[in-house]
Amino acid sequence: MSGSADEFSLIDAIRRRATRNPLVPLGIGDDTAHLYTHGHSGVLVTLDVLMEGVHFDLSLTLPQAVGRKALAVNLSDLAAMAGLPTAAVVGLVLPRDRGAALGEAVMEGLLSLADEFGVALIGGDTNSWEGPLVISVTVLGEPTGSGPVTRSGAQVGDWMFVTGALGGSLSGRHLAVTPRVTEGLLLHQTFDLHAMIDLSDGLASDVRHMARESHVGVVLDAGAIPIHADVDASLPPDGRLRHALGDGEDFELLFTLSPEDGRRLLNNSPSNIPITRIGEVTADEECRLRLSSGEVIALPSGGWRHQFND
Amino acid sequence: MSGSADEFSLIDAIRRRATRNPLVPLGIGDDTAHLYTHGHSGVLVTLDVLMEGVHFDLSLTLPQAVGRKALAVNLSDLAAMAGLPTAAVVGLVLPRDRGAALGEAVMEGLLSLADEFGVALIGGDTNSWEGPLVISVTVLGEPTGSGPVTRSGAQVGDWMFVTGALGGSLSGRHLAVTPRVTEGLLLHQTFDLHAMIDLSDGLASDVRHMARESHVGVVLDAGAIPIHADVDASLPPDGRLRHALGDGEDFELLFTLSPEDGRRLLNNSPSNIPITRIGEVTADEECRLRLSSGEVIALPSGGWRHQFND
Repeated sequence: MSGSADEFSLIDAIRRRATRNPLVPLGIGDDTAHLYTHGHSGVLVTLDVLMEGVHFDLSLTLPQAVGRKALAVNLSDLAAMAGLPTAAVVGLVLPRDRGAALGEAVMEGLLSLADEFGVALIGGDTNSWEGPLVISVTVLGEPTGSGPVTRSGAQVGDWMFVTGALGGSLSGRHLAVTPRVTEGLLLHQTFDLHAMIDLSDGLASDVRHMARESHVGVVLDAGAIPIHADVDASLPPDGRLRHALGDGEDFELLFTLSPEDGRRLLNNSPSNIPITRIGEVTADEECRLRLSSGEVIALPSGGWRHQFND
Repeated sequence: MSGSADEFSLIDAIRRRATRNPLVPLGIGDDTAHLYTHGHSGVLVTLDVLMEGVHFDLSLTLPQAVGRKALAVNLSDLAAMAGLPTAAVVGLVLPRDRGAALGEAVMEGLLSLADEFGVALIGGDTNSWEGPLVISVTVLGEPTGSGPVTRSGAQVGDWMFVTGALGGSLSGRHLAVTPRVTEGLLLHQTFDLHAMIDLSDGLASDVRHMARESHVGVVLDAGAIPIHADVDASLPPDGRLRHALGDGEDFELLFTLSPEDGRRLLNNSPSNIPITRIGEVTADEECRLRLSSGEVIALPSGGWRHQFND
């Protein structure tokens, strides 16, 4: 971890806080960190940047929640590959007038979630400036089982599933989300996952990402899509569905299985989180929605972008 | 690589530009990247964040040079471990009014240096906002030979060496620096490097970092320190020396060897870059400067911080 003289005390505090880990012969304190892996199948890597005023508002959100979320969104990406997260490096850009105290609070939230998932903080960079808070987190992990589960493996005839329930996350849940790391690992151990993605942009958008990368189509069953209790119950059904399709930041897993594996999953789920069959994979490379009337329409395009994202 | 709708065209351009690499079964386009290693000794990881107005001024500097430097500082950290860099992930925060064109220019500079060192761009995140340009780069690499060379291995009696010449980098050289990756690898192949660090904060500061981590002292020979031609030749000798000790951003390698290896190096250097013996490691945990008069004084404290850093 490098940084200016002003931030050395923050770095020292983080360095003391970082727990020892047999996978990390060199953590914070040298020019680079050194990370071993359990196996010999390489590493998984993902990075996300969160910016004050775009992804969060510090007048509404505790800095601990910001730190937690900055790690959580990356862990969710690892979960989508059925990866085991092992380590994180963090770039902190701190507003000069709020300085080290803000940095410590952000790192407190981040490290608390890191501990929950056995993720070691192995390095980073701190800086301060006259601008807003920016936090850049890179997470490393390892493939498990037969290797990473990509977005591109969905096969015609597959059944499509989702963990948890969707919509309304931006009313607050997105800041306290528990990434589906455990569920990704358990599903990958038990079934032949064909394709998987985490729901960040919203179900309608993320289904399209998977379909495009897999060169397939998808039909979703409107009546089957699990709608979160955070979605206003007084809305009409199609309004509630629009939230589940478009709100985003659900950080649930969307995946496909062969019908055989799908039946096994429905009979005996390895997960404590509810898992719901919401559709199937088709050959025609179109994404559609089957309404309860039986009518099949084009999947509404991407929902709407939420207030804190472009 | 994830990003908002506005930046998908930039991401697509980068994705097309990224060359195929046998170490990278999954690059840009999925939830995480997947990176193999040549050997089984794990990965080295380092991250640096550069901010407009703090580390660079876009009214004085081409965005290509900013992108190049954002990667170069990380490659320099890899070089300091005698690591082989293999891959990079990039977080771009773009000012909305300059948008994708600025992003493309930054990435052009970054990718050009990446190609020079065989580094694959495997993922990242793009965002835009009303604020200044921020670029966060994480570089991954592998240990070579007997493993990473740390800051903490300097031994009493070691000779201390530096590659290249020091001082005056901020007059422009820091933007076009060639990280000493090749030199780090060659030295590690040929000699038993005890400790190594890259010179980013300035020789006086970085000598202190190495001494502190190694629990040793250092005496530098003032007359031996190679002063770069970028340092104003009209200055008196002690003024020139102060620049070499304090300017920082030299991105040269500072390392220690046993006297036996040190003699071998002086007789037969594997490097095309000049390498100079500048001091020795002592037991007393103090950092000192031996003047040409023979007088030994305390090493001036850290030089001065340069204009673009805290």
